[in-house]
Amino acid sequence: MTKKAVVLLSGGLDSATCLAIAKSQGFDCYALSLDYHQRHIAELQAASKVAMKIGASAHKTAQLDLSLFGGSALTDHAINVPESGANPIPEGIPVTYVPARNTIMLSLALAWAEVLQAQDIFIGVNALDYSGYPDCRGEYVEAFQQMANLATKSAVEGHQIKIHAPLIDMTKAEIINLGMRLGIDYAMTVSCYQANHLGQACGKCDSCRLRREGFNSAGVQDPTLYKI
Amino acid sequence: MTKKAVVLLSGGLDSATCLAIAKSQGFDCYALSLDYHQRHIAELQAASKVAMKIGASAHKTAQLDLSLFGGSALTDHAINVPESGANPIPEGIPVTYVPARNTIMLSLALAWAEVLQAQDIFIGVNALDYSGYPDCRGEYVEAFQQMANLATKSAVEGHQIKIHAPLIDMTKAEIINLGMRLGIDYAMTVSCYQANHLGQACGKCDSCRLRREGFNSAGVQDPTLYKI
Repeated sequence: MTKKAVVLLSGGLDSATCLAIAKSQGFDCYALSLDYHQRHIAELQAASKVAMKIGASAHKTAQLDLSLFGGSALTDHAINVPESGANPIPEGIPVTYVPARNTIMLSLALAWAEVLQAQDIFIGVNALDYSGYPDCRGEYVEAFQQMANLATKSAVEGHQIKIHAPLIDMTKAEIINLGMRLGIDYAMTVSCYQANHLGQACGKCDSCRLRREGFNSAGVQDPTLYKI
Repeated sequence: MTKKAVVLLSGGLDSATCLAIAKSQGFDCYALSLDYHQRHIAELQAASKVAMKIGASAHKTAQLDLSLFGGSALTDHAINVPESGANPIPEGIPVTYVPARNTIMLSLALAWAEVLQAQDIFIGVNALDYSGYPDCRGEYVEAFQQMANLATKSAVEGHQIKIHAPLIDMTKAEIINLGMRLGIDYAMTVSCYQANHLGQACGKCDSCRLRREGFNSAGVQDPTLYKI
């Protein structure tokens, strides 16, 4: 029987690659997105396309308005997305960090995994090009896995949960090269923090810059749709 | 300056007591409830009353429809809430268990705590009268705390998070006696898994039975409003 996995899917470059990796490893993939009232809602439309194109068995989008708490440029329209162009990105954790977002998303994935009786969860976090987010580091992912194995009925009954973070130690260029080999059309992915409703990218935010530098380093033509 | 704490508040007996304990310890309390489309939506109305009466500085209710995943009698109307009356409650984890619910609620509390710059989170879980839920045990709470301290910007910057579970080792009777000393009017709390819209309890589900036995053992008259 094919093993089921829940794959977190934002609709960006990394999570699309992560889904393709899970598929290539033979998992029956259940893709999960989160509509947290993010500024770049176009990424959710991208997620639907990606889930279908790469071949997820199901795709669900949970609704949770994180602007209830605020505290991030991605959920609070009073905080601007930085376009400083500083390179490298300044030290410290930027205002685009969304408090506890990956913890919330992994918790939702854990809930679905338990209902599906899946023991595998994939998340496309990356510790190198990670913009300084604490919840993109390997030690965080390991701690989540440890907690998850004490949290659920399935785990208590002996079905241990594994959190896979296959991109954790890869550069953006390596991720892109792997994704190209797996046949991903990155034109359908949206990484920009302030993409418009057509999914066109600003080309100025940190996420756009990391993505563009990735395509440059990989020697792959950048297929991103930019605003004119 | 008074220290801020986020307190998870379901509207039931345990979480009301937990809020009163946090207040009695001098915390400035921010109460957080979760509307997960639970069967017993009356508990959310109870939570508002409890937050106001006990004196939370703010009360927010996050909206997250967990029937998206199903798998529990509390979110899936096709699964009946057991009324077996078996005493003690049968071995194993019952169908009223909601997959990953406490993990999801603690993750939301973590998000709000970070925005508030609070380092303290209270949850009213209880390992004795806990109906067999894995995410009500001390080792689970500790693992969540460890994960939280790797997850957030605040923690990375040195402001460690503490998850308080003051009821963890108490019997229901001890919880009730402490709550009475702290002046809680338990008539305003709703514990029943299938309370009606008036907050009237069925008197038959496990949650009702644990609550009633608690009042009996505590020697306190049961103030619960039951369906006639």
